[in-house]
Amino acid sequence: MILNRWQIGKRYLNVSLARQARVAETRGSFSAIQDKDVTVFERLLGTQGVVTDPDELGSYNKDWLNTFQGSSRVALLPRNSAEVSEILRFCNDRCLAVVPQGGNTGLVGGGVPVFDEIVLSTRRMDKLHEVDDLTGIAVVDAGMVLESLDQRVASLGFTVPLDLAAKGSCHIGGNISTNAGGLRLIKYGSLHGSVIGLEAVLADGTVLNGLSNVRKDNTGVDMKQLFIGSEGILGVVTRIAWMLPSRPAFNSVAILGCDNFERVLDVYKMAKNGLAEFLSALEMFDHSSLQCVEDNVGITNPLGKPYSFYVLVEIQGSDGAVIESSLNRFVENIMDRGVVADGVASSDGRGVAELWQRRERISESIKKDGYVFKYDMSVPLRNYIDLGEKLKPRVKGLAKRVCVFGHMGDSNVHLNVTADEYSDQLFAQIEPFVYEETVKMGGSISAEHGIGLLKKKYLPLQRNAHWLNTMAIIKRTMDPKRILNPYKII
Amino acid sequence: MILNRWQIGKRYLNVSLARQARVAETRGSFSAIQDKDVTVFERLLGTQGVVTDPDELGSYNKDWLNTFQGSSRVALLPRNSAEVSEILRFCNDRCLAVVPQGGNTGLVGGGVPVFDEIVLSTRRMDKLHEVDDLTGIAVVDAGMVLESLDQRVASLGFTVPLDLAAKGSCHIGGNISTNAGGLRLIKYGSLHGSVIGLEAVLADGTVLNGLSNVRKDNTGVDMKQLFIGSEGILGVVTRIAWMLPSRPAFNSVAILGCDNFERVLDVYKMAKNGLAEFLSALEMFDHSSLQCVEDNVGITNPLGKPYSFYVLVEIQGSDGAVIESSLNRFVENIMDRGVVADGVASSDGRGVAELWQRRERISESIKKDGYVFKYDMSVPLRNYIDLGEKLKPRVKGLAKRVCVFGHMGDSNVHLNVTADEYSDQLFAQIEPFVYEETVKMGGSISAEHGIGLLKKKYLPLQRNAHWLNTMAIIKRTMDPKRILNPYKII
Repeated sequence: MILNRWQIGKRYLNVSLARQARVAETRGSFSAIQDKDVTVFERLLGTQGVVTDPDELGSYNKDWLNTFQGSSRVALLPRNSAEVSEILRFCNDRCLAVVPQGGNTGLVGGGVPVFDEIVLSTRRMDKLHEVDDLTGIAVVDAGMVLESLDQRVASLGFTVPLDLAAKGSCHIGGNISTNAGGLRLIKYGSLHGSVIGLEAVLADGTVLNGLSNVRKDNTGVDMKQLFIGSEGILGVVTRIAWMLPSRPAFNSVAILGCDNFERVLDVYKMAKNGLAEFLSALEMFDHSSLQCVEDNVGITNPLGKPYSFYVLVEIQGSDGAVIESSLNRFVENIMDRGVVADGVASSDGRGVAELWQRRERISESIKKDGYVFKYDMSVPLRNYIDLGEKLKPRVKGLAKRVCVFGHMGDSNVHLNVTADEYSDQLFAQIEPFVYEETVKMGGSISAEHGIGLLKKKYLPLQRNAHWLNTMAIIKRTMDPKRILNPYKII
Repeated sequence: MILNRWQIGKRYLNVSLARQARVAETRGSFSAIQDKDVTVFERLLGTQGVVTDPDELGSYNKDWLNTFQGSSRVALLPRNSAEVSEILRFCNDRCLAVVPQGGNTGLVGGGVPVFDEIVLSTRRMDKLHEVDDLTGIAVVDAGMVLESLDQRVASLGFTVPLDLAAKGSCHIGGNISTNAGGLRLIKYGSLHGSVIGLEAVLADGTVLNGLSNVRKDNTGVDMKQLFIGSEGILGVVTRIAWMLPSRPAFNSVAILGCDNFERVLDVYKMAKNGLAEFLSALEMFDHSSLQCVEDNVGITNPLGKPYSFYVLVEIQGSDGAVIESSLNRFVENIMDRGVVADGVASSDGRGVAELWQRRERISESIKKDGYVFKYDMSVPLRNYIDLGEKLKPRVKGLAKRVCVFGHMGDSNVHLNVTADEYSDQLFAQIEPFVYEETVKMGGSISAEHGIGLLKKKYLPLQRNAHWLNTMAIIKRTMDPKRILNPYKII
């Protein structure tokens, strides 16, 4: 068998130099993969399960934003946890580094190799093992695509408690490993609550079976929680028991225009109080974001005239008439009080989808501006627009737009700065400023995208030495040779 | 200073011999506390913060069910995490064992000493530091009583996302450390989701500050999760950032009578689907439980005649008219379909409270039967009554009653067997049978009360060697001298 030679660094040429500088790392003292290792993998997984063709490897080696580029020469596609266990036991013995990869939709470089780590993809682990039609507890393999699960369980009256832009390609295992948040965390809470059981394979190949058929299970340290959000540095999540909520039968959406941010906070407060049990999303976008959607994808402002801020309120429920009247009463009430000057609402499927487009297509339209500096932060709610406001004078004359939007109901802001192309000067105006400001406000430098490679150097801003040290001890304990997703987080 | 001598084992006399046998342990090789240690503690905490009087120590040394009895000769009452840190650093250096204790309302002996461990009580750490009136994020000391926090935040429109029988005396830190569940988990989810930040002190005195002002925070391994439910074996929880939900303005309750368990499942399914966003509690109790309430505390059956099972459905929401009509429609619908033969509902405060009494006073009335064997399990929902049914023929002629009740919406069953007094013969019919059956069904041997001392020997039924081993490694890593809550869980 002749292996295609794959030079380290060969594909770095396509990558923005800025990004390379931002993720400067030195290769760890891992073994380099040899032909005989590939033979072992082929014997274990079959040739279908071992990818060595450089062209085919291209998609495993870079993230979908084209920000990060590794040079792995082999991707492995196990079909079950027993195969994951065999792979890891072998890699641990041989001191070969491994990067677990799901749908490869991450934005912080957590799921792509940095050097020549072996890619362990969950692509072929996509079985839905069972759904309890009474309780909604689903046991599913890590590689199932989020939207596929949602479609599969719809006929049973359930839905997934997670909705995000990448749902058509992200893997559930990746969602769990990054603790994905998305549009409806305000309704369904975080994965730390809804994942009731989990199977993971540790670095040495040990299969940790923490699957569960029941929601309440207080039997010692809840170790499954360690894997939720740790981006594969402690183990590879292979299967999940997930508590699926009832599928809401009806939803209504309104987009409201606000003249200033105080009014936005009024909308938040009234929605939280008045629509409490129905509220399923509370999103905000500023004028700059909506203008970008209008400029770049041709979708118009649904209100008569531009406002400084727009709030999208979605409610869901089991009774269509109650849902529709609740939202209409809410909008009337909020307009009567002069909180918003204008609003538009819909309760039918098509209208709801059209209104959602104003929010959902922001990221896509922003990408068309040229180069985008993307940030995902949590900030105290009162400070929701402050990062954007502080950044505007700093980037004046350098940036095309500063767009502030995101899951306001959860204090999660997506701050995007666009320009025709990348520039060091612009970059220097943004970082480390935005991270420092976030921490000063008492926020989080990563709300829902994780730390990965991108934010690693800023983590000490967020977490003190004691915290990082304890994290490092846990990492060292569970993966002494540090073969699992090296260079990421810590 | 003359210390009152406190002989190890002195107070064991009051304890049921059966229980002593069930928790056989050998004292670890910890140091014994000396007068000079007490002097150090008094210098640190003041005499108010150090309890050495044997009579006063009585309540620290035994649990409120009177099942467990330790012989600690000192209880420490720090006021803040700095003092907790000093205490633990000193105890770790001196190799003195410590048992953290909250409101001492636990049922598995997790919060009382087994031998002469020092009691570290959170009783004087009861400050509410802040509540964000916009988001409902509250930062609160571990020693605050759950109900006190609920009362403090009511005027701001918030409530605590946890409700349980011991709310008037349990401490929030204890709730977190045991991952308490209670009546409304079905609505608010588990503490793993609602606790957004946490400060804990490790065995060596290190203060781990993971407090947070924001809900979404994905910055590496979410270590705070380790402390939720680990019953103080990894660290002492000292402060919590808790996401409080909006206080529901209205609630309605119905009690429905079912002739058989199939009908109970029908009620569950219809309630989950039809009342989805309103559903705040779904409790079940069998005829035996209600009969016990009638016999022992004189509260009558609210329905015309006895049924095999009763289901209590509570819904909550922001619009009183919607809530009342939703519940009434649900009850009519369920009666029209012949699922239940009789039901009674109320939407006014007094009526709701009266209906709740049928469920809430079960534990109290059961206690009046004499001796009670209490079990807290999770079982797959379809098997909810199976443990009780299997037990009845085994305990016939020995037990007074077998009562099955609990948080059915979460598959959490409270199985209670009563008798005039404790008997070995009866005990042998129940244990280990109930634990073995639970595990066979795919349930959990502890749904919401934890493992503590009581269930320690059954934990290997639930968790395999890999899981226990990984748990032990984490324990060893974080508390090398094992001074924190020894003899508990592992």
